[in-house]
Amino acid sequence: MIKNDLYLRALKGEIVERPPVWMMRQAGRFLPDFRALRDKYDFFTRCQTPELATEITIMPVKQVGVDAAILFSDILVIPQAMGIEVQMKPNFGPYIPNPIRTQKDVDAIVLPDVNHELKYVMDAIKMTKQELNNEVPLIGFAGSPWTILCYIVQGQGSKTYDKTKEFCFTNPVAAHQMLQKVTDTTIAYLRAKVKAGVDAVQIFDSWGGMLSPVDYQEFSWFYINQIIEALKDETHVIAFAKGCWYALEDMSKSNASALGVDWTVDPKLARKLTNGKTLQGNMDPARLLSPIPEIKKMTKTMIDAFGKDNYIVNLGHGILPNTPVDHAKAFIETVKEYGI
Amino acid sequence: MIKNDLYLRALKGEIVERPPVWMMRQAGRFLPDFRALRDKYDFFTRCQTPELATEITIMPVKQVGVDAAILFSDILVIPQAMGIEVQMKPNFGPYIPNPIRTQKDVDAIVLPDVNHELKYVMDAIKMTKQELNNEVPLIGFAGSPWTILCYIVQGQGSKTYDKTKEFCFTNPVAAHQMLQKVTDTTIAYLRAKVKAGVDAVQIFDSWGGMLSPVDYQEFSWFYINQIIEALKDETHVIAFAKGCWYALEDMSKSNASALGVDWTVDPKLARKLTNGKTLQGNMDPARLLSPIPEIKKMTKTMIDAFGKDNYIVNLGHGILPNTPVDHAKAFIETVKEYGI
Repeated sequence: MIKNDLYLRALKGEIVERPPVWMMRQAGRFLPDFRALRDKYDFFTRCQTPELATEITIMPVKQVGVDAAILFSDILVIPQAMGIEVQMKPNFGPYIPNPIRTQKDVDAIVLPDVNHELKYVMDAIKMTKQELNNEVPLIGFAGSPWTILCYIVQGQGSKTYDKTKEFCFTNPVAAHQMLQKVTDTTIAYLRAKVKAGVDAVQIFDSWGGMLSPVDYQEFSWFYINQIIEALKDETHVIAFAKGCWYALEDMSKSNASALGVDWTVDPKLARKLTNGKTLQGNMDPARLLSPIPEIKKMTKTMIDAFGKDNYIVNLGHGILPNTPVDHAKAFIETVKEYGI
Repeated sequence: MIKNDLYLRALKGEIVERPPVWMMRQAGRFLPDFRALRDKYDFFTRCQTPELATEITIMPVKQVGVDAAILFSDILVIPQAMGIEVQMKPNFGPYIPNPIRTQKDVDAIVLPDVNHELKYVMDAIKMTKQELNNEVPLIGFAGSPWTILCYIVQGQGSKTYDKTKEFCFTNPVAAHQMLQKVTDTTIAYLRAKVKAGVDAVQIFDSWGGMLSPVDYQEFSWFYINQIIEALKDETHVIAFAKGCWYALEDMSKSNASALGVDWTVDPKLARKLTNGKTLQGNMDPARLLSPIPEIKKMTKTMIDAFGKDNYIVNLGHGILPNTPVDHAKAFIETVKEYGI
């Protein structure tokens, strides 16, 4: 059994001595050892080499003492497995040379055998579980189908995802077929991850907040909820939808074990909207750039506001690459000292 | 007197036969005639040449029949007037070669004489008022001090404005001094615009939604409210803070004549939070890419939800450059036919 199971107990809604803590995007970015690896191996090499993925996944457990590990990987391995070419361009981000724009493009997509196409992920999970030696739980993740659609239709990151929305609004039949194909692949992928050993899975809806409340229900939440329903008896599913404060109330009625909250939602309002659901979040990642005494103070205030139970301490989005390691440590340590 | 004064009557909270309509970023972008001018003159030449600014400002009045004109200009003319070099790079956006990063940088900024430094804006206003011939009101605008700070500290557009936040969170004294300098300049600038002839002014807080509710009060709303208080007896001030749903209730207690609302806020919730204040918005700009019958239906539904009074129909953010002109026209026409 897992020695430090605070994270899993919070997901089950059990009373805990203190809330667990981890940080979105903790595997990499802000750690000097990660940056050294990044200079040696390109992005997808790091994802596809189980030894590297394992090393990166474990770094923050060893170096800053988080209560859960999250497998180093990327949300875009799903479209890659579906036969869509994804490049990671330095100083640019993801680039999809042949984006999905027509019914014909959608029809051409064949659902992959994830155990074959993404075997490297499953190998990385098994290796990481072994290395973790049951110290802390391991989280697996996937992007939400809408967020994946954002990239594969737009062809790259965007401030508006106008091409993706245009596709949805002018060709909703094809858009929904594509979303369903991504959803089915994601369910198979997360199921395989659970079989390989992850203890919980998180869905990242990074671009849900681009949609109006009505469109969010149709183009994003409908599919996330399918994933939750498919996996709820096999594992814990955590749904994090950035910018989707307006959907929190509906999301809290789902079978998700927890909901992520970004830093634009006041903790007390988040509690009011979500009827006792375990919540995860929500410090502004940029606030880890504040002086350490302020980080400590804000972290305590945040735990007081959410309450120590049914709560997983985290940031409201991914940790910024320029976060000093000792600032991240101060954040983690403050949680560990909470209530002592 | 202005012949079509629907917009001004809505700002005063008067009963109207139908709500007025205009579109953020209507001056330019989606109009083929604008794109022809853009190919001939660079960005700041268009801003700084009163004849060009006038021509671009009037285009949407003539071509799609909006109920208000908004002067073609840019929020970054303020830092330019303050002696901060701002370049507009094609396919990149604003670029500030020497960003504000230290107390020394802040100290070096001298408040400009806006009537001298931004005389070209005042000339454009006078010329536009003459050309408009009192058909519809003319709106002037400025960026919020926080949004200006985002650019001049970061040095360019950003998904996180991490450098700007780092400056605020590690050097709050210098950050507040800089925000105050921008605020004082903005007040003088908007006052000069009112004298030159604009009928109302709108503050655009494009990046307010990057801040937590607590930080928003400290780094953004505090300064926007100073501008509102300084100008409330001279003109109508409209405050639009994208992504700041969490601040709407506080903002509704201010002396702003109206509040802009983005498309992530359900109209009925916006009404509930704002206690009868005139609201402006909030269709997703990407929804103007939908087929025309859908645009008409959604526009009617939106007006029904906000109610025809104390309401200015608009998008929830700037019109997308790829919006077909006849789609924009369908949006405007639907408002004009409302209730007939």
